[in-house]
Amino acid sequence: MAAAAGEEVANKRVVLKRYVTGFPSEDDMEVVTATARLAVPPGSTAMVVKNLYVSCDPYMRGRMTKHERPSYVPDFVLGEVLVNFGVSRVIASGHPDFKVGDLVWGMTGWEEYTLVPKPESFFKIHHPEFPLSYYTGVLGMPGLTAWAGFFDVGKPKKGDYVFVSAASGAVGQLVGQLAKLTGCYVVGSAGSDEKVNLLKTRFGFDEAFNYKKEQDLDAALRRYFPEGIDIYFENVGGPTLEAVLSNMRNHGRIPVCGMISQYNLEQPEGVHNLFQIVAKRLRMEGFVVLDYFSEYYKFEEEMAGYLKEGKITYVEDIAEGLERAPAALIGLYSGRNVGKQLVAVARE
Amino acid sequence: MAAAAGEEVANKRVVLKRYVTGFPSEDDMEVVTATARLAVPPGSTAMVVKNLYVSCDPYMRGRMTKHERPSYVPDFVLGEVLVNFGVSRVIASGHPDFKVGDLVWGMTGWEEYTLVPKPESFFKIHHPEFPLSYYTGVLGMPGLTAWAGFFDVGKPKKGDYVFVSAASGAVGQLVGQLAKLTGCYVVGSAGSDEKVNLLKTRFGFDEAFNYKKEQDLDAALRRYFPEGIDIYFENVGGPTLEAVLSNMRNHGRIPVCGMISQYNLEQPEGVHNLFQIVAKRLRMEGFVVLDYFSEYYKFEEEMAGYLKEGKITYVEDIAEGLERAPAALIGLYSGRNVGKQLVAVARE
Ligand SMILES: NC(=O)c1ccc[n+]([C@@H]2O[C@H](COP(=O)([O-])OP(=O)(O)OC[C@H]3O[C@@H](n4cnc5c(N)ncnc54)[C@H](OP(=O)(O)O)[C@@H]3O)[C@@H](O)[C@H]2O)c1
Ligand SMILES: NC(=O)c1ccc[n+]([C@@H]2O[C@H](COP(=O)([O-])OP(=O)(O)OC[C@H]3O[C@@H](n4cnc5c(N)ncnc54)[C@H](OP(=O)(O)O)[C@@H]3O)[C@@H](O)[C@H]2O)c1
Repeated sequence: MAAAAGEEVANKRVVLKRYVTGFPSEDDMEVVTATARLAVPPGSTAMVVKNLYVSCDPYMRGRMTKHERPSYVPDFVLGEVLVNFGVSRVIASGHPDFKVGDLVWGMTGWEEYTLVPKPESFFKIHHPEFPLSYYTGVLGMPGLTAWAGFFDVGKPKKGDYVFVSAASGAVGQLVGQLAKLTGCYVVGSAGSDEKVNLLKTRFGFDEAFNYKKEQDLDAALRRYFPEGIDIYFENVGGPTLEAVLSNMRNHGRIPVCGMISQYNLEQPEGVHNLFQIVAKRLRMEGFVVLDYFSEYYKFEEEMAGYLKEGKITYVEDIAEGLERAPAALIGLYSGRNVGKQLVAVARE
Repeated sequence: MAAAAGEEVANKRVVLKRYVTGFPSEDDMEVVTATARLAVPPGSTAMVVKNLYVSCDPYMRGRMTKHERPSYVPDFVLGEVLVNFGVSRVIASGHPDFKVGDLVWGMTGWEEYTLVPKPESFFKIHHPEFPLSYYTGVLGMPGLTAWAGFFDVGKPKKGDYVFVSAASGAVGQLVGQLAKLTGCYVVGSAGSDEKVNLLKTRFGFDEAFNYKKEQDLDAALRRYFPEGIDIYFENVGGPTLEAVLSNMRNHGRIPVCGMISQYNLEQPEGVHNLFQIVAKRLRMEGFVVLDYFSEYYKFEEEMAGYLKEGKITYVEDIAEGLERAPAALIGLYSGRNVGKQLVAVARE
């Protein structure tokens, strides 16, 4: 804690410069310097946090567009700081549950210091023995996403054939490892040979392939799943989903986590073989991690256990400094990240 | 029972003349006369049935195409009799559970007499006090489909907003009525003003509209469901599904029963807004009525009760004679049928 309470300090931040259509670029954002007061108004229950790590997450793209009908998450505000999940230290607090010095994670600003009006939305960090950055990933939102989506929505059984797309990413690498822990057969797809290698050597996937090198995704899936797929953990959508539907087994399940291949398209691609849902009695079910936040601390303990026992490993891709945050964010949409993408705002 | 056991008699039947691509025509089928022996081979457990009513069902279209990869139901065989559900009387039997004179329903031929090698697949008719034709509809396969799809897959709650497409058809008219019995708000779509009128006056739908008269289905649904749709009972697919997805409520459910608008297209239409499944946490779940056959007798009693109490009413569209069966079948794909389409083979 460099700054004394009440002091006004410079506050570097990333703001939205213009609303985005199509593919986002670094220029849509701007790094500016504002000021922050490192105290909370007397009598308020707000807190001020110093941000240590902020997370780059694919869903942020949706918030960079101006929506006519409200989206499931609010649009960012032009000229205002971007907000997303991050790991922070409390440096001022009027809230009885949050003390100066506490390590927390929650929805914060892409900036050095953030005034949090409702600290209740933040989680306490119970396992600072791990890298704190893990709380943007394996012990944070993407971890909870993988855990809830795979177990609660996917309802896996030992021996199930599991396919994961964007498999080396923040969520995918965990889904694959949780599936292996469950006794499933797991195949992942990713966009580079380096990532494919990671899947097989670090994360223990049974097989993996580089989807960019496959002419015919349907044929590739038939090769890897001659008996068909029981669970498809859907991260990408579009043509991948179409190829998967043709290769699902009867009573298969598709936890629909995201469809990143569609986020930058002005007209999303059509999926033509949805009748497979009837013929194969498939369940496609969407979920949003926010709905599982009430189970977070249970998850945190379970995942911390796996990490401690070496049953789960995690790969991160850390950009140093807020200046690099815009590039890191847009890199998600071309697959530049290898593992969980995040930004180190301040190293303590 | 006109024919004595062992006798060989003329047997009118509808056979498949050619495999179909695109829209089927009457000419794809042919009515021919073969012979049938009205006895079972000594020592066999087969039965011979006299067919009274046979059902016209949309899924038959799929069986009229030659598939490279096996479909979820076997292709029909060229030159062979079409098979589908029907109501029959046993006229010869080597099976201990089926006696001459029994009324049954099950998978039979589009012909006057059928040799059934495995009578175990047939159901006994316990409520002959209703029109026997009901066992092709409200008390048969479509009834079980509506019941299982709505209750087991749809998981309705009192007060839910329910939308049904192909709402005046064999399945749809029942889904709407079961939804009303459950205390839901129900809107149906159908392809003519006559059908819309039926929905509102006979089946008790709260609202109904003629989808062929709507320029903008999305706007129509917004009008009928200002708060959104909790359950969409999916019978048609394509652009209707796309419009519905944009109008679902959070945690909505889509029992996927069929997609008749796509059955005759060589390239099915694409659905572009599947990301709604994530944003709204939707569950789209396909089912096939065969998987519920073990619950049939339970269903039969429940539905017979509703019919007796006047809580459910049923509209049929009966073609007289096998000669009319091909036209009746293809009429399903242009909506010529008003209510459950079936064929009276023999009136006893
Ligand atoms: N439902 C929820 O609550 C929830 C929560 C968190 C995340 N999500 C979703 O989960 C998915 C994965 O998120 P994450 O945080 O784990 O991101 P991530 O996988 O770490 O990063 C995104 C990855 O997506 C892949 N990708 C980008 N464009 C693609 C395209 N056009 N086609 C195929 N793959 C493409 C890239 O990997 P490759 O090199 O392999 O192409 C990229 O590295 C996203 O769809 C996200 O929106 C949902
Ligand atoms: N999953 C299962 O086990 C199962 C079992 C039985 C039935 N099904 C499915 O359930 C659905 C309804 O079957 P049903 O027996 O009750 O048939 P039905 O509704 O009695 O007859 C078919 C109706 O579909 C409508 N239709 C035809 N072409 C259409 C198009 N291009 N767009 C929109 N609507 C169209 C027509 O009504 P309009 O005049 O209203 O257009 C037609 O009357 C079908 O999709 C069928 O395959 C599934």
